Amino acid sequence: MFKVGPVLCLSHGMGIPSVGILLHEIIKLMYHAGVKDPIFFRLGTCGGIGIEGGNLVVSESAVDGMLNPYLELPVLGKLQRRPALLDKALAAELKDLATDTDPFTVHVGKTMCTYDFYEGQGRLDGAFCEYTEADKLEFLQRVHSAGVINMEMESLCFAALCHHAGIRSAVVCVTLLNRLNGDQVSSSKAQLNEWQEFPQRLVARYIKKTLGLPVMLPQRTLPQHVRDPRHHKSMRHQSESFDIDN
Amino acid sequence: MFKVGPVLCLSHGMGIPSVGILLHEIIKLMYHAGVKDPIFFRLGTCGGIGIEGGNLVVSESAVDGMLNPYLELPVLGKLQRRPALLDKALAAELKDLATDTDPFTVHVGKTMCTYDFYEGQGRLDGAFCEYTEADKLEFLQRVHSAGVINMEMESLCFAALCHHAGIRSAVVCVTLLNRLNGDQVSSSKAQLNEWQEFPQRLVARYIKKTLGLPVMLPQRTLPQHVRDPRHHKSMRHQSESFDIDN
Repeated sequence: MFKVGPVLCLSHGMGIPSVGILLHEIIKLMYHAGVKDPIFFRLGTCGGIGIEGGNLVVSESAVDGMLNPYLELPVLGKLQRRPALLDKALAAELKDLATDTDPFTVHVGKTMCTYDFYEGQGRLDGAFCEYTEADKLEFLQRVHSAGVINMEMESLCFAALCHHAGIRSAVVCVTLLNRLNGDQVSSSKAQLNEWQEFPQRLVARYIKKTLGLPVMLPQRTLPQHVRDPRHHKSMRHQSESFDIDN
Repeated sequence: MFKVGPVLCLSHGMGIPSVGILLHEIIKLMYHAGVKDPIFFRLGTCGGIGIEGGNLVVSESAVDGMLNPYLELPVLGKLQRRPALLDKALAAELKDLATDTDPFTVHVGKTMCTYDFYEGQGRLDGAFCEYTEADKLEFLQRVHSAGVINMEMESLCFAALCHHAGIRSAVVCVTLLNRLNGDQVSSSKAQLNEWQEFPQRLVARYIKKTLGLPVMLPQRTLPQHVRDPRHHKSMRHQSESFDIDN
């Protein structure tokens, strides 16, 4: 967990159960810390449906693998349904922060959130595959027609728990490929590393705007990896001691 | 990922989606490496239902939060059900490897696997709790009467995917508390660290037996943490170069 000024940044692991544990604990932390009106963002990667790799999707809402717009969760042996709603005004504000000079485009649409990466997302390259490429493409086209423009594995729970807690929230993911063209990510490591910074760049503009800082300062080109552990320690120290008011 | 002789050891993260990704990839790895008849073990921690902390549960089979004995997964928009079966002979063999001098007892029974740690397992200390302690205890007693003796978050998918692939598998978890008595783990860090080694101790006996090594050599008391990075590197090097035949 990192804290810079009023911004907390945490890794949520992979999948709904993992992000669910984190959200329960962070919502409790917000409460006990007396934080008023926090905004939660999930930043990550996804497969685009009809969108090429290296572009951003801001989720309008989330659906499960059956296109249901809610998180279904057994609680004491009874199925509870919680609407997987995100803040539409926040999504629109994020989209408006894109500029003509960005190396990415920003799209707003539905996100399909699955419990499985391979069969759950209709991939052909898992350990099991009991359908054809034609079946897969028919499925992807069908969900695309229903407004789904990307797939990932956390948004359903993230949207449902934030909405249930009354917390404004947004999901911003970079596409690693267009699933209508294949399953394998073929871009280079350097390219993927660059793409993975795009969600942070958009959300950083929102944070700077909200804090009254200049939004459109040129982005520094930071090294992809901090190789010297002393440098890493020094960066962490700077991060820990950064005071937004100074 | 660590490999010692014919044993691979990996971390699967938290929850069904995370362990599912790992299983797809490891099953493919086994296939491409030409491995014949591997045995998969999940080792972890759990909440006991009617079993005090510091004891072992070997799962007989897994059920979901509705007591269904299968993994339900949307594939191309249709719900697939896969039986969450584990190898009963393997579970019995593991139980037989316990001795009178062990600091733990070994129990075989059903494991409830949930998608959520707090509400999904009837805890009172999550960010949300829309039921009473009496409701919770009624639920825990009901699942206990149905043969459930522990709860965790991976066994359903682990059992279902291994069974679907025809791989013999077992789930061995140490209880951190008896959920019939509460939700909070109150044992010390040192105690928990010791308990977390118990599943490894039992499974190590099975591995040694299978490899024809002496099973009941006294366990070495290893330090809980390797503090010196050079020592860590040296241990990793030993692990990498260990040859089971020498």
